[in-house]
Amino acid sequence: MLLAKVIGSVVSTQKSPSLTGKKLLLIQWVNADGSLPAQDQIRTEIAVDSVGAGEGEIVLVTCGSSARRVFPEPNDAIDMAVVGIVDSVSQNLSA
Amino acid sequence: MLLAKVIGSVVSTQKSPSLTGKKLLLIQWVNADGSLPAQDQIRTEIAVDSVGAGEGEIVLVTCGSSARRVFPEPNDAIDMAVVGIVDSVSQNLSA
Amino acid sequence: MLLAKVIGSVVSTQKSPSLTGKKLLLIQWVNADGSLPAQDQIRTEIAVDSVGAGEGEIVLVTCGSSARRVFPEPNDAIDMAVVGIVDSVSQNLSA
Amino acid sequence: MLLAKVIGSVVSTQKSPSLTGKKLLLIQWVNADGSLPAQDQIRTEIAVDSVGAGEGEIVLVTCGSSARRVFPEPNDAIDMAVVGIVDSVSQNLSA
Amino acid sequence: MLLAKVIGSVVSTQKSPSLTGKKLLLIQWVNADGSLPAQDQIRTEIAVDSVGAGEGEIVLVTCGSSARRVFPEPNDAIDMAVVGIVDSVSQNLSA
Repeated sequence: MLLAKVIGSVVSTQKSPSLTGKKLLLIQWVNADGSLPAQDQIRTEIAVDSVGAGEGEIVLVTCGSSARRVFPEPNDAIDMAVVGIVDSVSQNLSA
Repeated sequence: MLLAKVIGSVVSTQKSPSLTGKKLLLIQWVNADGSLPAQDQIRTEIAVDSVGAGEGEIVLVTCGSSARRVFPEPNDAIDMAVVGIVDSVSQNLSA
Repeated sequence: MLLAKVIGSVVSTQKSPSLTGKKLLLIQWVNADGSLPAQDQIRTEIAVDSVGAGEGEIVLVTCGSSARRVFPEPNDAIDMAVVGIVDSVSQNLSA
Repeated sequence: MLLAKVIGSVVSTQKSPSLTGKKLLLIQWVNADGSLPAQDQIRTEIAVDSVGAGEGEIVLVTCGSSARRVFPEPNDAIDMAVVGIVDSVSQNLSA
Repeated sequence: MLLAKVIGSVVSTQKSPSLTGKKLLLIQWVNADGSLPAQDQIRTEIAVDSVGAGEGEIVLVTCGSSARRVFPEPNDAIDMAVVGIVDSVSQNLSA
């Protein structure tokens, strides 16, 4: 999984029926300390929320077929999901 | 999912039967504000349309096995699909 | 899918039985106009042919589990397939 | 699989039920000699532990649907798993 | 599939049962002529051998769920496999 920050949301009316009623979150990959990566490494993507995440929160993001399986069917169009809200990251700098 | 802009289309006569009758859209990844990424980050790909998207529109794109599942069988050759037309992106710059 | 140019082929005698009798094409990702990407973006990969593609042709390439499904079993070792020969790419530069 | 070093862990209370009771390890891709890649290649990700790995250890990491299958169900949200603790890496520099 | 060179191997005692008895090869992506890519493009990964490949050989590598399927069960932890030993690569420079 990747660490990301929720920075907004997306509205789409004309979309796959499997996305109806789901929250589409705009996310940005972040470093372990919550900071943004270098300018040329910034990536913004859209993940479907499964845990009630809100703007500004640091979250765990799952990709691929695993993201689809987090939701009951129909879930076909989903390839990225927010699967956790991060309380804390513990990094051992001498490890 | 990723945000992309539809910038054209591809014609292929000799192709997998699972692509017959499907619209092959030329897309380009874009930033949350619809702008192009830096020159060396530009990526152009081909996605199969599932929502009636047209040139110039900002769309949601799904990759991998989820893209295949958006279409009824036969859908074998599909690994990228346009699954939504974006109405608006709301980005909280202070988030 | 990605656009690529067929630039050669690979011979392998000792290989997965699921690759027996299949054509292994050397491909290189190309831009929408058929040109090569910047030097540091060039990627050469091996895709299994499913449409009778030949050297010099621009083709559509599918990755992952979808590539495997383009072929009847046994197809286990396949994660990249040429699924179409491109007749033309129409790009709307003002889109 | 990729080689990584365990550098910390993540705590998440509000998360997918399939992550309950699992250890979420903060990992960083490393080179074959255990050193970090160049600064702009550093990637930090979160992998679910399946082998009792601890901080400072060099581990094998599996991605995608294979990572999910390492765990008994429910395992839906998992797309990255630590599947081995590395005892030694033997690299033939003249190969 | 990708072209890689076998440059070593990895020993892991504490690992997923599905890796028991399998050879874990250290590989490095190479160009079509067997040369290494530019320094900042070098990637070293671990692939499970399925064809009896040895150090110094150029091999075909498959990723994702296809890699898992090359082996009989149990094969859960595998996401990268050596599926062929390359005899020759024919590249048409004028193509």
